[in-house]
Amino acid sequence: MENYQSPQRDAQFVAYELFDFQSHYDRLGFSEASQDLVKAIHTEAAKFADNILAPINQIGDQQGCTFDEGTVTTPKGFKEAYQQYVEGGWPSMSHPEKWGGQGLPYSLSTSIAEYFSGANHAWAMYPGLSQGCISTILSHGTEEQKARFLPKLIEGQWAGTMCLTEAHCGSDLGLLRCKAKPNEDGSYSLTGTKIFISAGEHDLADNIVHVVLARLPDAPAGTKGISLFIVPKFNVTEDGEVADRNQVTCGSIEHKMGINGSATCVINFDNAKGFLIGAENRGLNCMFTFMNVARIGTGLEGMAASEAALQGALRYAQDRVQFRSPTQRDGTAPADEIIVHPDVRRMLLTQKAFAEGGRALAYYCMQQVDVSQHSESAEKQQLAEARLALLTPIVKAFLTETAQEATSYGIQVFGGHGYVREWGMEQLARDTRISTLYEGTTGIQALDLLGRKVLGSNGELLSVYIKEISDYCEAFNGDVPQQHWCDTLQGYMQQWQELTHHVGSQAATNPDELGAASVDYLMYSGYVTFAYYWLRMATTASTKLAEGATETDFYQGKIETARFFFERLLPRSQSHAAGVKAGAASLMSIGESMFKA
Amino acid sequence: MENYQSPQRDAQFVAYELFDFQSHYDRLGFSEASQDLVKAIHTEAAKFADNILAPINQIGDQQGCTFDEGTVTTPKGFKEAYQQYVEGGWPSMSHPEKWGGQGLPYSLSTSIAEYFSGANHAWAMYPGLSQGCISTILSHGTEEQKARFLPKLIEGQWAGTMCLTEAHCGSDLGLLRCKAKPNEDGSYSLTGTKIFISAGEHDLADNIVHVVLARLPDAPAGTKGISLFIVPKFNVTEDGEVADRNQVTCGSIEHKMGINGSATCVINFDNAKGFLIGAENRGLNCMFTFMNVARIGTGLEGMAASEAALQGALRYAQDRVQFRSPTQRDGTAPADEIIVHPDVRRMLLTQKAFAEGGRALAYYCMQQVDVSQHSESAEKQQLAEARLALLTPIVKAFLTETAQEATSYGIQVFGGHGYVREWGMEQLARDTRISTLYEGTTGIQALDLLGRKVLGSNGELLSVYIKEISDYCEAFNGDVPQQHWCDTLQGYMQQWQELTHHVGSQAATNPDELGAASVDYLMYSGYVTFAYYWLRMATTASTKLAEGATETDFYQGKIETARFFFERLLPRSQSHAAGVKAGAASLMSIGESMFKA
Repeated sequence: MENYQSPQRDAQFVAYELFDFQSHYDRLGFSEASQDLVKAIHTEAAKFADNILAPINQIGDQQGCTFDEGTVTTPKGFKEAYQQYVEGGWPSMSHPEKWGGQGLPYSLSTSIAEYFSGANHAWAMYPGLSQGCISTILSHGTEEQKARFLPKLIEGQWAGTMCLTEAHCGSDLGLLRCKAKPNEDGSYSLTGTKIFISAGEHDLADNIVHVVLARLPDAPAGTKGISLFIVPKFNVTEDGEVADRNQVTCGSIEHKMGINGSATCVINFDNAKGFLIGAENRGLNCMFTFMNVARIGTGLEGMAASEAALQGALRYAQDRVQFRSPTQRDGTAPADEIIVHPDVRRMLLTQKAFAEGGRALAYYCMQQVDVSQHSESAEKQQLAEARLALLTPIVKAFLTETAQEATSYGIQVFGGHGYVREWGMEQLARDTRISTLYEGTTGIQALDLLGRKVLGSNGELLSVYIKEISDYCEAFNGDVPQQHWCDTLQGYMQQWQELTHHVGSQAATNPDELGAASVDYLMYSGYVTFAYYWLRMATTASTKLAEGATETDFYQGKIETARFFFERLLPRSQSHAAGVKAGAASLMSIGESMFKA
Repeated sequence: MENYQSPQRDAQFVAYELFDFQSHYDRLGFSEASQDLVKAIHTEAAKFADNILAPINQIGDQQGCTFDEGTVTTPKGFKEAYQQYVEGGWPSMSHPEKWGGQGLPYSLSTSIAEYFSGANHAWAMYPGLSQGCISTILSHGTEEQKARFLPKLIEGQWAGTMCLTEAHCGSDLGLLRCKAKPNEDGSYSLTGTKIFISAGEHDLADNIVHVVLARLPDAPAGTKGISLFIVPKFNVTEDGEVADRNQVTCGSIEHKMGINGSATCVINFDNAKGFLIGAENRGLNCMFTFMNVARIGTGLEGMAASEAALQGALRYAQDRVQFRSPTQRDGTAPADEIIVHPDVRRMLLTQKAFAEGGRALAYYCMQQVDVSQHSESAEKQQLAEARLALLTPIVKAFLTETAQEATSYGIQVFGGHGYVREWGMEQLARDTRISTLYEGTTGIQALDLLGRKVLGSNGELLSVYIKEISDYCEAFNGDVPQQHWCDTLQGYMQQWQELTHHVGSQAATNPDELGAASVDYLMYSGYVTFAYYWLRMATTASTKLAEGATETDFYQGKIETARFFFERLLPRSQSHAAGVKAGAASLMSIGESMFKA
């Protein structure tokens, strides 16, 4: 977005005032990650996002990628920006020093990824996919594979992808057909076609390292017969240099609703040389390691879009004059800035509540990832993993679903001008529309949350989180209105448990009850989760004001937005509770031939 | 949409089984409008929509309109389709025979307009705007003006526009600046620039007749100083033939999110010759006549998009296989059609409930327009106008807001494929995004409903409608579940009144309470209004089944969808009720400088 400003102040608030990242980093041994250093890194990242990425966002949308006989050209400025990104050392930030990384925390590189995505979602896809590829090789590759592929990937000289989807299978990977045949030298020959491969082919990097799901000969059917392979675009010598071209080609790129600057490719493997990562037939398990982190990243994209939409709408609302306010102005101007109108404020506050509530939840998850990766205490690691298991589908789906509303309001606040391309608001809505689809649709996240995580753990994962919230509320000792919100939230904790028990007992006799309740259950969970973070943000802000902080607008804004959230958005949870309780019958009793009018 | 099929069966159901259009037309003296004739016209309209308009919908999106030195070229096929439209006699259907029309009811031409819009929203804008221009001249023009302009407009040889918006004023027309200077010959010279003029310039017709809002010299400021003018692109001789070019030029066209085949123009008037319509300074009042009908038309566009999204998603859900159903299939296939999954059904049923509920509400409104235009009873006319006054903002805003959700589900059911252009689902979402913006945003409709209509009539307009619904429920004598839904609906009628009284009393002391409650009030009104029509549709379907109707799928589908609506969608009204009751404080107490993070 043209005038995007990376929200550094709020990032600092969430990291250091809300979640005390200083102690957090100290505890994990990141002694070099001082608040000053983190702030300096955020400032540099913000400059890159605001001054380099944002100005090429609109042109990226207009030009899109172009495909010509297997090669993909990214829009004007994308390559130069990527070079600056590499020169700035951004790709290596949170990777191990052993492979050329800087050894900084995951939460640091991920939090600045918000700025990149907010400034230019399409561009940010390229480094984002590389990070997924790197994480997978780091977690599951052999030492030799790491030595061969990681240094250039971590440096950013090479880029990476994740190749999962095929034409006939997206959500249901058990159906995939791509084949891998073992060669005598220990490598494999892969044959098949993958679709929807983001960053599958482009002109930004010297090589592209694909991480590919495929089946070995005689592998079991379904998800238990899928293995994971490294398949580079150019073969790589043992000492990690580019060699001859591998049999990997881009067949075409998709024409999409948005993120036009991001190449979405059909990738053909034609006896392409690859290397097995992890154990045979355990590819999906290896993939899930990556997917959980990728899902937090997708949630972050949604939140970044909500923030960008708020910024655009707020500027317009403070500039555009239309109608008089009956109460807010005493002047004689023929019309006032539209921010005086209650319904415009309702839209702006919804955007703010979603963007900043989403930031809080995302940072909380990043903090848990740090702990799960670096804590010396097995118990703390397990607790962090338990929290992440529960919250990952929420952060992915709820932050992207709310982004649909926030970016739609970005258009709506602009009126007809929002529908016109030049203002960038409609691009935000188009770009962010992908985020409820890829990395697992909202429906898939909802089944993961309710089925695998909540009921799959017999409620254990949920109880851990509810206990955290209840403990917070019980220990709370503050002023109204926060005390009142605490009481409200306690009531929701009870309802959350009740709804869970209700669905659990229904689903025990009819498995369709699970899918019938799942999306409403997820949305309910999102609203009450946000309530927890909004309560904490308001309380933190109150404390700062009581301590005499001078940024009264900032802190008072937090308290007011929390109020708006509790009074105006949280009640939406009751519609979702009703959806959870409605049961499967009204969905399943209608015959398939009765849908058509 | 490529595979769009005009929903003729449901149109017949709504018109003849639900609302008894046969008696309705008989009562109004449309003796020639027999059910057979209406059905034949619908069939022909459906052929035109499905076979001519739908196939050029996607190419219209891809090519868009092109602008070159003042001329606008529409996409390939648009002009030929328009010629067929004119040759088919479609433009003249519901206009007076005196001016070359066919004298058929408004509801007939409007109901088939759904098909055109569902097949090709962008194309349908051109005839749609002409209808607005014709209605305005019919209602407010002099006999001489009618004789000069109407025959060619009604024939379709000429097209028309409505020129309201200027760069600095959209919703708030009181700010407009375009000037009209009287000439000695009784005509006027108009100078100024209008923006967002749909169909403002194109290559479909021999002339374009603009209806323009402008200010006379020394006119009062604000809305009371606006007059309405006819300003043709080519001057017109007294006997209605095209003469020399008028000083009306197209300055540019907008690049938009969607409806790319519809030219959205900047129109410059440079001492252009025009003719006053209606009384001086009463232009806005003349405009409102047209706007109410145009708002029903916009609601219809939303409903048509919901229908098209349902059609696409349903086809895909019956074809695409992914995952096994735990309960719906006993086969050994590796995966089932995704329509077996409860959450896919939730999305499809939401689309169906919105599309068909919207059709019922839209037809009800059309019926009222027929009565208001043609009834011989002043009392019945007044009742129809009272109903329309209340329902117009609901049909406009609720059918377009629900279309956002329905078209988004169109994408979502397709997964990643929904985001790709070739399937047409993302185009539907982009095209229909305009509909909550133009003809008055949702916020403007909500203020119209709550402020002007409900509170402005001291609750009278609402009471008339609530009485209709309550009378229906009280007289109801049917089976469960309809009896149960009746009771539910009665409860909502009480809540609707209570919410109204609540806002009314709040707003009496603080006018911001009105804007704070308005959009939630409108959405609440939409859900309970739909409940009424879904109850009636279910009851009608039950009766048909009891009478031995053979189309059991069709009728049973109505009953099942009503059930879904009552169990799953109607509870959303409670979130909106909470929004209405939340009050203005949480919106207004935050300082303007506190919005930014």
